Amino acid sequence: MFKYSRNVSPHPQDTRQLILDTALRLFEERGYAATTMRAIAAEADLSPSNAYYWFASKDELVQAFYNRIQDDHLDRVADVLEGRGTLAERLSAVEHGYLDVIGGYHGFGGAFVSTALGSAAANPFSDESTRPREKSIAIYREVVAGARPAVPEKIRGALPELLWLCHLAITLFWVTDTSTDQQRTRRLVDATVPLLVPLVRVARLPWGAAAADQLQRALAIVMERSVV
Amino acid sequence: MFKYSRNVSPHPQDTRQLILDTALRLFEERGYAATTMRAIAAEADLSPSNAYYWFASKDELVQAFYNRIQDDHLDRVADVLEGRGTLAERLSAVEHGYLDVIGGYHGFGGAFVSTALGSAAANPFSDESTRPREKSIAIYREVVAGARPAVPEKIRGALPELLWLCHLAITLFWVTDTSTDQQRTRRLVDATVPLLVPLVRVARLPWGAAAADQLQRALAIVMERSVV
Repeated sequence: MFKYSRNVSPHPQDTRQLILDTALRLFEERGYAATTMRAIAAEADLSPSNAYYWFASKDELVQAFYNRIQDDHLDRVADVLEGRGTLAERLSAVEHGYLDVIGGYHGFGGAFVSTALGSAAANPFSDESTRPREKSIAIYREVVAGARPAVPEKIRGALPELLWLCHLAITLFWVTDTSTDQQRTRRLVDATVPLLVPLVRVARLPWGAAAADQLQRALAIVMERSVV
Repeated sequence: MFKYSRNVSPHPQDTRQLILDTALRLFEERGYAATTMRAIAAEADLSPSNAYYWFASKDELVQAFYNRIQDDHLDRVADVLEGRGTLAERLSAVEHGYLDVIGGYHGFGGAFVSTALGSAAANPFSDESTRPREKSIAIYREVVAGARPAVPEKIRGALPELLWLCHLAITLFWVTDTSTDQQRTRRLVDATVPLLVPLVRVARLPWGAAAADQLQRALAIVMERSVV
């Protein structure tokens, strides 16, 4: 592995990665609250001002981490999204893939979610989170679009955002899951995914269109936060 | 109003109330993180050891606050629960009543939720939170039990816990709601409550029993945390 020191000039993007990697390692080892930006810089063998150039605050590290998680999640489930399967099969694979990706970060997951909730910038609905949020919602759009049998058109508009919100709820559950390897969260995914079947079935009923419209109205209120 | 000083011996329960009232006022004025137990004691004109006798930590204050909110919520909606109305009418009144109760605490709501998520003891699923949690779920049991027309039996078991979880989600939304007087949360309640109608309608369909059973299985995994 390439060794950085103050005497070489690595590619800027590498420096950014190095800081993030170092930060995640220290959060794991020492806890989120106890890890300062100065300590991260020292551990990465960088001057504090260099580290601050890349991340003005720990909030911005949370953002970058959130962004990386989405990239890793997409990498992990790309095959599933390109393949075929029922809506339930695809969603199950995508959620379990996500739990694989975040598994190593459980030690400071709670601190990250706390930060995200307590910060106007770092929360998943903020303007600043637009990029990672859009990446994540795009995964659920693919889950819906590629499902066979096809998802009824009535519910196709609302479903990706609904699934993304459920995905956030699963993340919250995972954060406080104290079971070994967060197996309880896995069980929750397995018990929740089959609820898609009656949901889609309702969309096919004559009165399903009105229910889907109402769902879309509720989702619009949640999601409009992201454009305010 | 009764003035406390070190020279009188108020009823113990009054001291506890005084500390909690003082803490909530300081959280509002100075922020949650910046308010120490020592500062709360000083402001309440109590010795630190006396304050620590009642609340070993700010975590315990969060617990007590959570408990008070449930009592105030029940007081506020007692008439609704004793009266009659449709399921949607009752739920709407109960949620808006809740938003009335918590309205004054928006300034530090985020800090409280962060604490609750970051703490094994203070989160709403913990053993320590059993009393306030049960109080809150009991409200949703009443919402369901008193609804006319009666809620189909198939869904009567699962519905109170489902509504309570939605109520937690509404609270999370409220915490990060930056709209004036959190009007966006009011609108979200108004857009979400009508979704009860298709939910109940599904429970009346022949395949509704299987869907209700699946829902109950998912809820059981969420709620079992509370007894672990």
